Amino acid sequence: MIRRTKMERIERIGVSLEKGLLLLFDKLIAKQGYQSRSEAIRDLIRQRLSTEQIGNPQAQAVAAVCVVYDHHATKLMEKLVDLQHSHILQVISSLHVHLDEHDCMEVIVLRGRVGQIQKMGESILSMKGVKLGRVNLVATQFV
Amino acid sequence: MIRRTKMERIERIGVSLEKGLLLLFDKLIAKQGYQSRSEAIRDLIRQRLSTEQIGNPQAQAVAAVCVVYDHHATKLMEKLVDLQHSHILQVISSLHVHLDEHDCMEVIVLRGRVGQIQKMGESILSMKGVKLGRVNLVATQFV
Amino acid sequence: MIRRTKMERIERIGVSLEKGLLLLFDKLIAKQGYQSRSEAIRDLIRQRLSTEQIGNPQAQAVAAVCVVYDHHATKLMEKLVDLQHSHILQVISSLHVHLDEHDCMEVIVLRGRVGQIQKMGESILSMKGVKLGRVNLVATQFV
Amino acid sequence: MIRRTKMERIERIGVSLEKGLLLLFDKLIAKQGYQSRSEAIRDLIRQRLSTEQIGNPQAQAVAAVCVVYDHHATKLMEKLVDLQHSHILQVISSLHVHLDEHDCMEVIVLRGRVGQIQKMGESILSMKGVKLGRVNLVATQFV
Repeated sequence: MIRRTKMERIERIGVSLEKGLLLLFDKLIAKQGYQSRSEAIRDLIRQRLSTEQIGNPQAQAVAAVCVVYDHHATKLMEKLVDLQHSHILQVISSLHVHLDEHDCMEVIVLRGRVGQIQKMGESILSMKGVKLGRVNLVATQFV
Repeated sequence: MIRRTKMERIERIGVSLEKGLLLLFDKLIAKQGYQSRSEAIRDLIRQRLSTEQIGNPQAQAVAAVCVVYDHHATKLMEKLVDLQHSHILQVISSLHVHLDEHDCMEVIVLRGRVGQIQKMGESILSMKGVKLGRVNLVATQFV
Repeated sequence: MIRRTKMERIERIGVSLEKGLLLLFDKLIAKQGYQSRSEAIRDLIRQRLSTEQIGNPQAQAVAAVCVVYDHHATKLMEKLVDLQHSHILQVISSLHVHLDEHDCMEVIVLRGRVGQIQKMGESILSMKGVKLGRVNLVATQFV
Repeated sequence: MIRRTKMERIERIGVSLEKGLLLLFDKLIAKQGYQSRSEAIRDLIRQRLSTEQIGNPQAQAVAAVCVVYDHHATKLMEKLVDLQHSHILQVISSLHVHLDEHDCMEVIVLRGRVGQIQKMGESILSMKGVKLGRVNLVATQFV
């Protein structure tokens, strides 16, 4: 079996910028661990496109909903499981992490249109017992 | 063995606000799915405190690092596994999700001081093959 | 002539929360300079409602578009003035600040629907000569 | 007198990226109004560097503090003026905009170290009578 990356034509473009700006950028990306400028610039471009897409309620996206809750809280865990099963088409997977003797974190990965998964994420955050949380959207259509 | 929620004294405070503002807030939190105002306000307070804490590089926090990458990309998966094992104290767990025949998403949950896990998160985002990603910090000290 | 603040009925609601959470919140708002908890909580509520509203392209809002540019840059200043006059209904006012011998900052305040002023803000940010900038939206319908 | 833009050596670098990604980026920047790719990429780089810098409390920056308040509110206007005069070194300028018969918006531009102006901005937001506001930081050291 041969495993291949997605074959796509690579273009090479020229970018002109002030020397001072380039020096600062090179310094930053070295600190972040990048091995090439092209890669760092591609990442900036992808992030910009992703930000644009998740502003569109109809775009396809993935959401990582991170919540912190007390795992002794009355019935929250069952509700979370129920909710995940009743939205079987949106919920892809979830990860449960024990933070201390009381609190745990759950990351629930949803897939669907931005509007839908944003709404579903918010309904998870508003559940009784959820202390803290956030819906992190990542656009995937263009990746 | 008796499992109990963290026992903490509950205080009751009074908040005065304009009627119009209250109506709009009630409407919003109903849409989000909240069952009580207190809960919605507690969540706003926790989010505000969390934002404050993750501005402090020394504070304890949890990061959910979400990355999208091509799982055929040369050696990225091994590198990700290596990195997780070499930072065994910070990495708590990770979740792998298949998005399509090429791309997958990995959520890596890190624990540690804000400065450390932010830096480690950025070094994951900058890896060759990672297309898109984000470091989502959640403060846990006060929860 | 009698100047009065907008007269609105004030409601008083009760909020219950854990003692530890309250202590941390009181400490934070004292540091920020708040004189009462009600005020701090009202501000959290208004921010939440504002965030919600600026997600709606049809909502009325104000944008403060902040740009940094080299004031010797070819024709940018004239273009900025032209643009402001050609969108006379949206542009309310602008402020020009000299940062150093080359750079200046301009804050342009726009009024209109979220979708419109966001788009107009982006067209300002993309002008040749603008080095850095941001569109800051504030919803005003509910204030 | 000859007015010149800051003379800086321009470098030209090559960036390689997938054709599909490039097409999407070109489409986005055309919509935003950019006239060249280089310019759009320079802006992404400057934004990234600015984000990095405003994470450092010691870096030089400019803040545009936007606040909405009722201009009949007891003594807020005098307090705002007093505060601006007592921080004469940080406050550069301010802009006052009438939104309706009650509310106005003020944009106060501060200059100084990130830590200082962030703190001063927050103390403005927390003033009695301020309904809504935000501290928008822009790093200027590298521009």
